[in-house]
Amino acid sequence: MAPVFSFRVLQTDGEARHGEMTTAHGVVPTPAFMPVGTRGAVKGVTSRDLLDAGADIILANTYHLWLRPGDQLIARLGGLHRFMGWDRPILTDSGGFQAFSLGARRVITEDGIRFRSHLDGSEHLLTPEGATDIQAGLGPDIAMVLDECLAQPATADAVRASTERSARWARRCRDRFQAIADAAPSEKGARPLFAEIKGPGPFSGGRQAPLIHAAATDPGTLVTVTNPGQAQFGIIQGGTVPDLRAMSVDRTLAIGFEAYAIGGLSVGEPPDTMYSVVEHTAPLLPAGRPRYLMGVGTPLDIVEAVSRGIDLFDCVMPTRNARNGQVFTSEGRLTIKNAQYADDARPLDPACTCYTCRTYSRAYLRHLFVAGEITASVLNTVHNLRFYLDTMARVRQAIVFGTLETLRRSLRATFSRPLSDS
Amino acid sequence: MAPVFSFRVLQTDGEARHGEMTTAHGVVPTPAFMPVGTRGAVKGVTSRDLLDAGADIILANTYHLWLRPGDQLIARLGGLHRFMGWDRPILTDSGGFQAFSLGARRVITEDGIRFRSHLDGSEHLLTPEGATDIQAGLGPDIAMVLDECLAQPATADAVRASTERSARWARRCRDRFQAIADAAPSEKGARPLFAEIKGPGPFSGGRQAPLIHAAATDPGTLVTVTNPGQAQFGIIQGGTVPDLRAMSVDRTLAIGFEAYAIGGLSVGEPPDTMYSVVEHTAPLLPAGRPRYLMGVGTPLDIVEAVSRGIDLFDCVMPTRNARNGQVFTSEGRLTIKNAQYADDARPLDPACTCYTCRTYSRAYLRHLFVAGEITASVLNTVHNLRFYLDTMARVRQAIVFGTLETLRRSLRATFSRPLSDS
Repeated sequence: MAPVFSFRVLQTDGEARHGEMTTAHGVVPTPAFMPVGTRGAVKGVTSRDLLDAGADIILANTYHLWLRPGDQLIARLGGLHRFMGWDRPILTDSGGFQAFSLGARRVITEDGIRFRSHLDGSEHLLTPEGATDIQAGLGPDIAMVLDECLAQPATADAVRASTERSARWARRCRDRFQAIADAAPSEKGARPLFAEIKGPGPFSGGRQAPLIHAAATDPGTLVTVTNPGQAQFGIIQGGTVPDLRAMSVDRTLAIGFEAYAIGGLSVGEPPDTMYSVVEHTAPLLPAGRPRYLMGVGTPLDIVEAVSRGIDLFDCVMPTRNARNGQVFTSEGRLTIKNAQYADDARPLDPACTCYTCRTYSRAYLRHLFVAGEITASVLNTVHNLRFYLDTMARVRQAIVFGTLETLRRSLRATFSRPLSDS
Repeated sequence: MAPVFSFRVLQTDGEARHGEMTTAHGVVPTPAFMPVGTRGAVKGVTSRDLLDAGADIILANTYHLWLRPGDQLIARLGGLHRFMGWDRPILTDSGGFQAFSLGARRVITEDGIRFRSHLDGSEHLLTPEGATDIQAGLGPDIAMVLDECLAQPATADAVRASTERSARWARRCRDRFQAIADAAPSEKGARPLFAEIKGPGPFSGGRQAPLIHAAATDPGTLVTVTNPGQAQFGIIQGGTVPDLRAMSVDRTLAIGFEAYAIGGLSVGEPPDTMYSVVEHTAPLLPAGRPRYLMGVGTPLDIVEAVSRGIDLFDCVMPTRNARNGQVFTSEGRLTIKNAQYADDARPLDPACTCYTCRTYSRAYLRHLFVAGEITASVLNTVHNLRFYLDTMARVRQAIVFGTLETLRRSLRATFSRPLSDS
């Protein structure tokens, strides 16, 4: 079965686009922000909270789920959607970034990334084919190719060599993805791997009954497929060198993916450098496919990138900052543990209608944070996610009304100033 | 304004009673279980989760809230209900038990309990009058008297002396409670302490506008009252000595409270000893008032106590065990981290309809627990609370239908066996 993935642009405002991205688990209005569910849970909240916050799509991390509890375990249980209790779209990264940044004694060869698990020291090899197979088993609606994450700082030659390797790996990922798709039995012939996964639970309809495919490139290997409608995105690398970005675009477009991401940014470079790379790279990508800027960013970063033609974002910032007590509001950021909030009866954000803001005062939230209560993380996360997702809704609305520049200036004014309480 | 507190028994089954306890914040069907919100939050969940689990009344800890964030801060913000975002009934303990068990260098005299805070080492004196004043400021619907918690083991003489002191302290608590009530301005003359607490939030209706009362017993002291409808419960002490329990009942009834609790149990004695003390003591208490067994217990303990005439319970067990990965189910307890659940697609409890059981598998919950995800605590707590509160609903129903003995035997069979996975 071919991916059901599609995208159409409904409205533009300068380079910014408002569109609809259709996946095997539903439609995502873009520009969209993906909350990060590293280990199969967005930290501190439940699927119900995510729906309540307005999440249309979430991201999960292949590296973490592969090592624990294991992609095959998740596949046996029907795939990531059922495992996580989330029946809307999911995107998974390829696992490469975490293998680079968390794995010990990592060695990168043309074959792939060899490393030792941060959990138990066991040795693993992550290849382009392996990353594709693992994601076939996890069953997100969007899988990412394995690319090489270059250690910074890097020489121009090193960036070029890495970009070329990433392109070769992308080719291998696509070949594997196609081989798995080509080997798929007809829908009629699909056979469930484990009958018991059709048990209780909201996702037992069988739409994603796992299949066993023999991957054509490696006849001896059985690949589990839990989402036959999966799409695969390529990733543009090339550091901050315009020519290499352009070369990466050429090489990646020549392979052909359902859509394209810009990787290798938000790794410590100044914001203006990132904006510049995005501004140079986004127009080289097909207008009819969504563009995903990986790992970005602050609310301001997001609007700056949208105004340069980006459609999809993910970042741990709203959830991680929430657990650390930093809250995003329409008036800027605030640090809830500060003494000035001890007696403050106002909600975190008077303009917000999330459960936290409807129910609790800053004084209460400060108390919970200072006391180390788990509920502090829950309530701050509920709010920060709503703030991010509300911001995306305002971005989409601004594109429809042709007022994105006004929104961009407003967010710049709000988030360029120092913390409201610093 | 006199307490609005009342109680009526609707049905009995042997010694067990099903009734309705009316408080300033609504009616509680009894027998009832109170989830414990130590520091103003039931650990890991929100008020919304508590409503969803079926909680009618919760307990908060005076000691913790007094030391941090402070009873006066909570009073300025309108009282504990508004602070916690919970507009149903609340009961607070007196703080004595925690001052004994958490405070450092504690010295008990006739005056009260002198101790150093476990937070910052600061010295505090908790007197019967102080415990009453603090609870007046916090504004629960039910306040408890300060009693002396006796270190175990204790001689019969020590138990007697302690029981007598508790009775004298109960007298002082009641005197203070009455003085505060007598000093209350008329409803018409009630004046809000802080105008700004009438800001946003669901509890701004002004029903609990804070008042300043001059307490008659100590004309120099202003006591803040945030819940004029507050009731006060006495506590029966006397250890495991029947005569001392009877003496304590006599002394406490002679003072007269809205209702009575049995204290000094669930402190390490064998279950049969506890049941025996309850069986001896409960019938000595007025049939027309609710009876509260403090700090109890397991589902089986609760049903055993109900069948001996108890109406109210609190215990950290469902919430604490949830965070430690121990889950209560209709088939007994299970320890979610055990390897046998790694691949288990079933919900925690096939008979449960809580959000956790409707949405997630044991395999997923095991994964989250092993990975140390906060969401594991949230989801296990949601389930354990529902299990306890569903059990109370079944207890009430069994009393109505005269089948409590059948339920008691069933729970004994379920919870007397070893852990299902041990």
